[in-house]
Amino acid sequence: MTDRIRISVDAMGGDNGPRIVLHGAQLALRERKNTSYIFHGRQEELGPLLEEFAELKPVSTIRHSDNVIAMDEKPSQALRKGRGNSSMWAALQSVKDGEADVCISGGNTGALMAMATMCLRPIEGISRPGIAAIWPTLRSDIIVLDVGATIGADAQQLVDFSILGAALARALFDDEQPVVGLLNVGTEEVKGLDSIREAARLLSVASGAGFRYHGFVEGDDIGKGTVDVVVTEGFVGNIALKTAEGTARQVGSYVRNALKANFLSRVGALLAGQALDALRRKLDPRTVNGGVFLGLNGIVIKSHGGTDEIGYKSALGLAYEMARSRLIDKIDEGLRQFPVKPATPVENQPEAKPA
Amino acid sequence: MTDRIRISVDAMGGDNGPRIVLHGAQLALRERKNTSYIFHGRQEELGPLLEEFAELKPVSTIRHSDNVIAMDEKPSQALRKGRGNSSMWAALQSVKDGEADVCISGGNTGALMAMATMCLRPIEGISRPGIAAIWPTLRSDIIVLDVGATIGADAQQLVDFSILGAALARALFDDEQPVVGLLNVGTEEVKGLDSIREAARLLSVASGAGFRYHGFVEGDDIGKGTVDVVVTEGFVGNIALKTAEGTARQVGSYVRNALKANFLSRVGALLAGQALDALRRKLDPRTVNGGVFLGLNGIVIKSHGGTDEIGYKSALGLAYEMARSRLIDKIDEGLRQFPVKPATPVENQPEAKPA
Repeated sequence: MTDRIRISVDAMGGDNGPRIVLHGAQLALRERKNTSYIFHGRQEELGPLLEEFAELKPVSTIRHSDNVIAMDEKPSQALRKGRGNSSMWAALQSVKDGEADVCISGGNTGALMAMATMCLRPIEGISRPGIAAIWPTLRSDIIVLDVGATIGADAQQLVDFSILGAALARALFDDEQPVVGLLNVGTEEVKGLDSIREAARLLSVASGAGFRYHGFVEGDDIGKGTVDVVVTEGFVGNIALKTAEGTARQVGSYVRNALKANFLSRVGALLAGQALDALRRKLDPRTVNGGVFLGLNGIVIKSHGGTDEIGYKSALGLAYEMARSRLIDKIDEGLRQFPVKPATPVENQPEAKPA
Repeated sequence: MTDRIRISVDAMGGDNGPRIVLHGAQLALRERKNTSYIFHGRQEELGPLLEEFAELKPVSTIRHSDNVIAMDEKPSQALRKGRGNSSMWAALQSVKDGEADVCISGGNTGALMAMATMCLRPIEGISRPGIAAIWPTLRSDIIVLDVGATIGADAQQLVDFSILGAALARALFDDEQPVVGLLNVGTEEVKGLDSIREAARLLSVASGAGFRYHGFVEGDDIGKGTVDVVVTEGFVGNIALKTAEGTARQVGSYVRNALKANFLSRVGALLAGQALDALRRKLDPRTVNGGVFLGLNGIVIKSHGGTDEIGYKSALGLAYEMARSRLIDKIDEGLRQFPVKPATPVENQPEAKPA
């Protein structure tokens, strides 16, 4: 695909102002030349800022929005105030109108999810969107969803998340048959919630939807990379994601302290400097920045609000790759190929739908 | 307290046979002299083994049980087969009969929980027991519960877990007012499940039950040690615990690889050896081995089944400390002091119960 990827950016979203957003875009552009940007936000702020980024300016358009959604606004409030006239809404509208391939915002997650759902609407056959995280593991990156779009999920929604997550894995990892596991408290058949057991039943009788169902996985299977896609409901997924972030920071801090413990360890750390720098980059949360909203008629990436230009660069890189690999088409393929329409009991399906 | 602490041990529980159990007990005895043991299991195996541990023998009794609960047995099956005549049941019975202060088993968690609940019964006022983990954090060890005793918890059960976890914190950490937080997906009032919101309301209007209620905490607050006791239901707690274990192993593996990356880093690792060894001990899962069953009329510790003698030693040390600090009395105090009897709506309480 040689077409230019057009990225719509909520330039006012995030905690650190629009400068780091534009800076990140310029860095991302250096890595992926055939990109163009639409920046949504206050013209009087963005105009002068764009002058500072000479490489970025020729491929960028500024679209004025008066209104900015605050980071602490409740979703319902944000919808009332910001529908139609905020930088967040306008950034989504660009995707809906077909003038951009993907939208990105570092703003308020709840507000972004509410607006994205209202503006882009869920894909037919998907009742609720999910947020997927790209999770680094001992094997390679994997997908974990839902990490907090909605609380609770029934069996059908877990099946939907499996189809959506598998499509994202196919788009990002160039793997035509990613392996999907359901997060549970044990690998024995008897354990877990009814919704998870029922989802397991639906997934195990189905096949050929662009993924292979592995079975149950436990919390420690995430870090091992046992499967390519870990499926769970949003409350558990969010707790797992944040607990892992906390643990990684904790162990990182232990390591730093150990290497400062005495004179010899400080010399040792100096000698091992290059390797430790590589480790630091590997653990840098900015290098894997961005939750992907899945299940809507359009690709939306949520960047961490508190990140810097490096974080925006990697979130924009993610946005580019998802648009380039035609994520939405891959989801559509997955939905058409899944032989058991989630909403229909298995016994009522005369035969698998042709792909 | 100078009385001898009497520990009842299911010597047949665990994946690695009774030798490591006895070995762990001898190591634990060296650290805490005034201990005595009752080992439950097959006399023909335990008798000759005990001869190998000369220090242990004088303070130990062997109690014969024919039956051993298998690690993969379902709880219901285990209850049918092992009630009354298994090493696991007999180990619990010793606590019930008052001949031991605490029971420990490395066997099947589900079976142990089912048997412990049937043998020791829940404390009056507590509807369901929980499993608490001692979790190392950047600040100090904290308590997280429930990590998998039961799936799902209503508001009252979350309040119960708060009282139980706070009592454990008072027993282990010598802190008379430990701080309790409810695990949630956000710190804003609007987020989370109804059960968690209702528990928050009950906890915030109550006070003086031997703990202070902090509010909501998120997944990354666990590793930071934001509060002394993190309360959640068993599914989420189990996923959080195992995800953290997986992440710690993952980061540890990154560190090892970084320090083997090149010649300089290998020399560096050699120089920093002592500090890195200390780090390794800190991250060793065997040094914090043992889930505590809370809410029963007796103290029960579940050791990891796959651990070795070092793991058993630390689990037995935990058992000793809990018995010594009169955990059951502290739970009883907590229940009596909690001004709102969890089962009763707040508005029907004329006034706080005297402690």
